[in-house]
Amino acid sequence: MMGYRLPEHFVTHCLRGAGQVFFMENALTGVCFLLAIAYASVDTGNWATTVGAVLGLVVATGTAYLIDARDKAIAQGMYGFNGILVGVAVPTFLAAGPVMWVLLVLGAAVSTVVMDAFTNVVTKNWGVAASTGPFVLTTWLLMLAAYSFANLPIASMGPPKLPEAISVAGFAGMAPQDMLVILCRNIGQVFLLGNAVSGVLIVIGLLVESIPAAIAALLGSVVALFCSVLFGADPAAVKAGLYGFSPVLTAIAVGVVFMQTGPKVLVFALLATIFTVIVQGALDTLLTPVGIPTFTAPYVLTMWLFTLPKAQLLPHPHAPNPESKIGHQ
Amino acid sequence: MMGYRLPEHFVTHCLRGAGQVFFMENALTGVCFLLAIAYASVDTGNWATTVGAVLGLVVATGTAYLIDARDKAIAQGMYGFNGILVGVAVPTFLAAGPVMWVLLVLGAAVSTVVMDAFTNVVTKNWGVAASTGPFVLTTWLLMLAAYSFANLPIASMGPPKLPEAISVAGFAGMAPQDMLVILCRNIGQVFLLGNAVSGVLIVIGLLVESIPAAIAALLGSVVALFCSVLFGADPAAVKAGLYGFSPVLTAIAVGVVFMQTGPKVLVFALLATIFTVIVQGALDTLLTPVGIPTFTAPYVLTMWLFTLPKAQLLPHPHAPNPESKIGHQ
Amino acid sequence: MMGYRLPEHFVTHCLRGAGQVFFMENALTGVCFLLAIAYASVDTGNWATTVGAVLGLVVATGTAYLIDARDKAIAQGMYGFNGILVGVAVPTFLAAGPVMWVLLVLGAAVSTVVMDAFTNVVTKNWGVAASTGPFVLTTWLLMLAAYSFANLPIASMGPPKLPEAISVAGFAGMAPQDMLVILCRNIGQVFLLGNAVSGVLIVIGLLVESIPAAIAALLGSVVALFCSVLFGADPAAVKAGLYGFSPVLTAIAVGVVFMQTGPKVLVFALLATIFTVIVQGALDTLLTPVGIPTFTAPYVLTMWLFTLPKAQLLPHPHAPNPESKIGHQ
Repeated sequence: MMGYRLPEHFVTHCLRGAGQVFFMENALTGVCFLLAIAYASVDTGNWATTVGAVLGLVVATGTAYLIDARDKAIAQGMYGFNGILVGVAVPTFLAAGPVMWVLLVLGAAVSTVVMDAFTNVVTKNWGVAASTGPFVLTTWLLMLAAYSFANLPIASMGPPKLPEAISVAGFAGMAPQDMLVILCRNIGQVFLLGNAVSGVLIVIGLLVESIPAAIAALLGSVVALFCSVLFGADPAAVKAGLYGFSPVLTAIAVGVVFMQTGPKVLVFALLATIFTVIVQGALDTLLTPVGIPTFTAPYVLTMWLFTLPKAQLLPHPHAPNPESKIGHQ
Repeated sequence: MMGYRLPEHFVTHCLRGAGQVFFMENALTGVCFLLAIAYASVDTGNWATTVGAVLGLVVATGTAYLIDARDKAIAQGMYGFNGILVGVAVPTFLAAGPVMWVLLVLGAAVSTVVMDAFTNVVTKNWGVAASTGPFVLTTWLLMLAAYSFANLPIASMGPPKLPEAISVAGFAGMAPQDMLVILCRNIGQVFLLGNAVSGVLIVIGLLVESIPAAIAALLGSVVALFCSVLFGADPAAVKAGLYGFSPVLTAIAVGVVFMQTGPKVLVFALLATIFTVIVQGALDTLLTPVGIPTFTAPYVLTMWLFTLPKAQLLPHPHAPNPESKIGHQ
Repeated sequence: MMGYRLPEHFVTHCLRGAGQVFFMENALTGVCFLLAIAYASVDTGNWATTVGAVLGLVVATGTAYLIDARDKAIAQGMYGFNGILVGVAVPTFLAAGPVMWVLLVLGAAVSTVVMDAFTNVVTKNWGVAASTGPFVLTTWLLMLAAYSFANLPIASMGPPKLPEAISVAGFAGMAPQDMLVILCRNIGQVFLLGNAVSGVLIVIGLLVESIPAAIAALLGSVVALFCSVLFGADPAAVKAGLYGFSPVLTAIAVGVVFMQTGPKVLVFALLATIFTVIVQGALDTLLTPVGIPTFTAPYVLTMWLFTLPKAQLLPHPHAPNPESKIGHQ
């Protein structure tokens, strides 16, 4: 189309895009993540999320070629991870139908444009990663729009209401096996999957590329569970893994990927991970009157706040941009 | 005042400011736009909007001299277009009265300060145009404030309520002449005028300076109408032109003014225009709990997202700042 | 801890941090401000705010050492003023309890991280002061989170509701002594103290370091009272000083601290101070559906908008960053 030859390694670039949701530039990791999404589809019987994931990944990565994004960034999968999340989110919260698929394709294409827009602001000007910020902004707009459009019926979010203070915590003890399930769901919910087996498949995908990242994910999940119980979060949300997915990403991002792991950075990452639980509670309240999910905004906001001051924390310059990667393939 | 000699061509600079609402540095275009506003006043019998437009234009342009803005930018009308929109918006949504006029003058003066503030961030740091962002921010603040102040009674917005998903589209066919009226209203609503004749006067004003801009406006209007019906927007809002004015601005800005028109940019502008319809629906939902209009925010947000990545799209550098102009006078 | 020797002058740095809430790098000023907080505690019988203030100040300043912030900035008190405000705000709006104190300490530590994050964006990129922006963002997140967590019961804010237009102003004249009390409360509310004597103690603290700043505070208070009555604000809020604290800060910041005082800058500061009253009314409306206070956001937003265009206003470069100070010690 328009004289742009499709690259030979398009499938590899797409799979790396899937892996980059967890900062992994590894196609095999991406395969594990797609299997995690597919497993949840088997479990729920709803295949629209898996189809949406593949479609979002392909459209977003393809759009990067059309707008002449840098070849290196495309090859690293930098244009796929926002698209795949758009592709999972749209059929999760909206009812499947022709207009929904149009919206999904539009949203995935736009996520690539927004990725470049964010990169030019937050990476080039501020020196931090865009990360899943483009997914959050794009999908918030799609979800908010659904309330205004009759041909985009809402399946499972909202309705908009005024926030009310939670008054009873209601955690009357928890069996160890229940805790394990939550710890895995915390990881699965990064892909909007409330499925513990999917969480395990994601951890396997992480192990393929980076053992420190896998450890950080698990520790982030533990910290999130502990803090959400300590603060007295809604037990149903905690059990569904909804208080854990953003802290998991923060733990990996601040503790392993964007900063050089060390004793001091680990304390810093711990503070960031705990604060992400607070931000999750905060954004839940903020978005209640408009009836949309937070997506990974608690992670993105916290990660920005904690990586922006890096000049003070790190003695040596490093590359806090979306192209930095951990380990070697 | 304060030793600042008023420029000889003050009226010309003001009229160019009116023209710059549609990116046209042309005083005659500005005259056509003022006529469009006046025509709507004749039609509705409410002259406060026309008086407000002139007052906002004069105050905002005059303030630019007082804060020592660059002469060249003043002469191009860069300080008038936000002020004229403040001047139309305030009497459209608030009831006329002495305090309202004080607020209008304050708002127009502040819009000039905000223009310089935005320019220093979005233009100097990020390389994109401030455009009507200062109008949107300033007037949002004025409208939100009106709910808090008893001497600023609200005439026609809100009341604040929780968003509800629209369930029935209700477009049971539309006569061609009805469509033509909507296409013109889509253009008139850029000046908050739900008047088809005003829309025609605006198109005439565009033709005076730039035929491509006039074509882009009309095509943007067509795309907006098509998409809003496809998605199933509220028919009353579509008929009033409220789903069209931001896409019209996006089509001109992305397709003609801020990027070099060509096959690829046209596809890009089409995507941007379609996405603006989605953003319009999204911001309608977002602002429902606080009861204020979106103004041109859907255009400003989309234009920023689509012009920020320009480095990837355009082989040659260009001037994506508020001083760039199309055509020659 | 972690090999970082505590500085010899830690107490001085903390007290300067208290003073910096009003831009004063003066430990004695900080003592006056702490006395103002303590006086209000005596008056209300609630000592949690004073304990919180000291704790927030110490934790935030201490965290600056741990993240290797620049020594000079720490010595100037640049890491204390957000922390002390977090420390006053949390026990003002949340009920005291073990988890509240955990939240307060976390919030104070995070305010230091956010200070560096803001500095790297708004100061290094945009050339304006972070000021109390980090306090506002951090504490908004803490307050929003409290609605989601059962172990953080809310004492005195909200409940979230839809905004309603105020219809009756209800100022039927005011005795001079009542006006004086309001003028002092306007200053006390910068520290969230609705106490006139506390306001007087703060003015004394200002006089210790800068007579122009004290004058600007009083004039800002007068302008705020006049405008809030003119616009017809809620009399209860006006009497509590809630329409005055942000304009007071704007008057000092724009008129004295960040710009070089002169006839033109005074007119500019007057416009900024008046506009802050409008922004106060606007943000009150905006935050009503989520039930949190504005804190000093009206000041921060207005100050940014009015100091960003400084290049146009000031013939000579100056230092619009948080380290600039007025007068000499």
